[in-house]
Amino acid sequence: MPTWESNKKPACALICVGSELLRGKINTHAASLARRLASIGLELTRETTVADDAEALTASIAQALSNFDVVFVTGGLGPTFDDLTREAAAAACGRPLRRSPKLLAGIAHKFKKARYLHMPPANARQADLIEGAEPIENSVGTAPGQWLATGAGSQRLILLPGPPSELNPMCDDFVMPRLRRLFPVRPQEQAHLHFVGVPESVVDHRLRPLIEQAQKSVRSSRGMRMDFTILAYLGLVDFDLFVSAPARRTARQALRRLVKKIRTKMGGRFYGMDKDYPLQKVVGDLFRRKRISLAAAESCTGGLLSARLTEVAGSSDFFRGGVVSYSNALKRELLGVSEALLKKHGAVSRQSARAMAEGARRAAASDWSVSITGIAGPSGASATKPVGLVYIALSGAARTQVRKFLFHGSREAIRERAVTAALDLLRRV
Amino acid sequence: MPTWESNKKPACALICVGSELLRGKINTHAASLARRLASIGLELTRETTVADDAEALTASIAQALSNFDVVFVTGGLGPTFDDLTREAAAAACGRPLRRSPKLLAGIAHKFKKARYLHMPPANARQADLIEGAEPIENSVGTAPGQWLATGAGSQRLILLPGPPSELNPMCDDFVMPRLRRLFPVRPQEQAHLHFVGVPESVVDHRLRPLIEQAQKSVRSSRGMRMDFTILAYLGLVDFDLFVSAPARRTARQALRRLVKKIRTKMGGRFYGMDKDYPLQKVVGDLFRRKRISLAAAESCTGGLLSARLTEVAGSSDFFRGGVVSYSNALKRELLGVSEALLKKHGAVSRQSARAMAEGARRAAASDWSVSITGIAGPSGASATKPVGLVYIALSGAARTQVRKFLFHGSREAIRERAVTAALDLLRRV
Repeated sequence: MPTWESNKKPACALICVGSELLRGKINTHAASLARRLASIGLELTRETTVADDAEALTASIAQALSNFDVVFVTGGLGPTFDDLTREAAAAACGRPLRRSPKLLAGIAHKFKKARYLHMPPANARQADLIEGAEPIENSVGTAPGQWLATGAGSQRLILLPGPPSELNPMCDDFVMPRLRRLFPVRPQEQAHLHFVGVPESVVDHRLRPLIEQAQKSVRSSRGMRMDFTILAYLGLVDFDLFVSAPARRTARQALRRLVKKIRTKMGGRFYGMDKDYPLQKVVGDLFRRKRISLAAAESCTGGLLSARLTEVAGSSDFFRGGVVSYSNALKRELLGVSEALLKKHGAVSRQSARAMAEGARRAAASDWSVSITGIAGPSGASATKPVGLVYIALSGAARTQVRKFLFHGSREAIRERAVTAALDLLRRV
Repeated sequence: MPTWESNKKPACALICVGSELLRGKINTHAASLARRLASIGLELTRETTVADDAEALTASIAQALSNFDVVFVTGGLGPTFDDLTREAAAAACGRPLRRSPKLLAGIAHKFKKARYLHMPPANARQADLIEGAEPIENSVGTAPGQWLATGAGSQRLILLPGPPSELNPMCDDFVMPRLRRLFPVRPQEQAHLHFVGVPESVVDHRLRPLIEQAQKSVRSSRGMRMDFTILAYLGLVDFDLFVSAPARRTARQALRRLVKKIRTKMGGRFYGMDKDYPLQKVVGDLFRRKRISLAAAESCTGGLLSARLTEVAGSSDFFRGGVVSYSNALKRELLGVSEALLKKHGAVSRQSARAMAEGARRAAASDWSVSITGIAGPSGASATKPVGLVYIALSGAARTQVRKFLFHGSREAIRERAVTAALDLLRRV
């Protein structure tokens, strides 16, 4: 059993209990607990999901207690026969369960208050406390949580209910404040850098020397620590940095130096730093700030770019709308692309992209416009025009420019990458 | 190390790799893998998430290999220095990594095709195979998966990439068919029922007595088993049923009886039964089969309905395209909605929805058209027009009908629910 030293972060593990989580239900417990822990400078080291099975659950809790300082268990505190967390946790730490008369009265009172006059007998089990544990008030449901100091007092076992509507308030009101007092960690600073139009491996290749150098210098400073994660998604790369130090100022300075170096290194591929700042919001803010209006003409992306731009509230300030010219007829009718042009060059061509963009700008009387035409596949390709071929045009008062792309992947991936590329071009208008 | 007996299900464990999953990103891997395993009669016994930490990852894989028949590892197959799954898995099963010249050439070719002329040196690591492992083709990204028979040949270690767009096709195309051959479980029959326009709780309430009755009768038959999962998403509910029995015929009959009862109970809310049959595909197939062409005019959904319809390959057979009339100017210019109408009734009105649909049908010369206009929020509401108010019109040669909705939730939820409602109306044209 490890003991916690005051200059180290406690290692935290989460065990999620519930067969439904292993049968297709999405588990949001880890994410919501992780965000709450980050807010007090702590983090999860491991998450495990186990079924409603007494033996497996007991073994998991025992194993976690022999490796971690703080062990959270969520779920399995209900009244039914497949709610086994109380018994398993008691067995794992070798303590008996005792029914608390006070808790029992509280649960019965909740039933009375909720107009069920009698508490069902099964709910009495929810008053069973591990010997030595402190109950955690549940203001929403009937299952109290449990907080147990164990392992010579330096370790915490925390039982919490599964439903997010009960779990989250108990974390916010009781667990996090208590943990913060118990483990006052070093101030942590974080930065979130976003890149576009560059593969994850290229980001990695360019940044690796910087990061390694920074980590080396951090390691030589007592009590400092630097972590990062890199996450790629269809043409976008998110790079998150975390620095902790004995003084917040030290952490902030180290982070600022590194971020500056990274931004210099990545140049125009960098597009934002806010935690929740998607590319469509960057583009929207830019157009709104500069009071430029925009229209779109989409072929292979079928409205996806417009849908992305209008995801953000307030997009009507700059986005006029546009045309989903999925058929050639609409390209002619609404965008004024000539029959001759379509015949000569085809709908997927530099010329068609240009005419679509210019037609959209005219129709919407907007300052700028963007068009996308391409072959998302799986069919539609020809000898000279492969699946993934996409033309994107930007049209402004002064000129129209067209860029050619060749994207790989599924129909969905090609459409997503085309939208990301279009947003990237708009960002650099 | 356990050995698999032919009359038992293999025990399956999943290890998800990625610090981001312990820092607040929601993990969808377990849910998507669990649903795929259910389709071949298998299930997950345990899921564990670990950080990008070589030591912890190696220990987790080794521990899983000593307890499970099939061990999946997702994530950590990227090219960057925090992608450690290959090395950790090799260490955990005591085998060396060998760089495959064939894989290397394949990865380099993918870069060439995507117009990055040179593969970054870091990507070479993605060609490292555990000795004895078989590579799994990745049709979307550059990271191949790995399939290794280990532990005297009865055990499988399966490495898969993290991004769902790469993970899911590899599961469907390679992993599940292979596992099904390897572990032919008791004949299992499954049904996937899709409902639209009805809350999860209502589905649950209506179907519970049917299911409980069926489960009771199944429990009394030797060797039979019935499982189900229910999954709701913004106006759509998926209901999956699994029945296994010593003879396929028994399972099929039991399932058929139950499905019939469920369909009767749910009436018009039922829209399909195929595993992967989204509502937009149902609509597309219907329009294609009946040779009806369609156009769309979207305001608050900003292109989302068109994007959804064109997600499906071959949608150009029936979908002509349409107008994203985010501004009133475009409603007038491209859809011919009169200034007077907009002034009198406003853009979010029964009259405007009707005029938009009729304008789209005229512009695209299509058989049918659909329009959506509403207030997605958070701003834009008035005393008489709250956030969530949406009008959807369907226009055909004979008549135009308008329906009024009041959706709740975030901007995103309202847009999604409006698109789902429009697809539902189209389905019933």
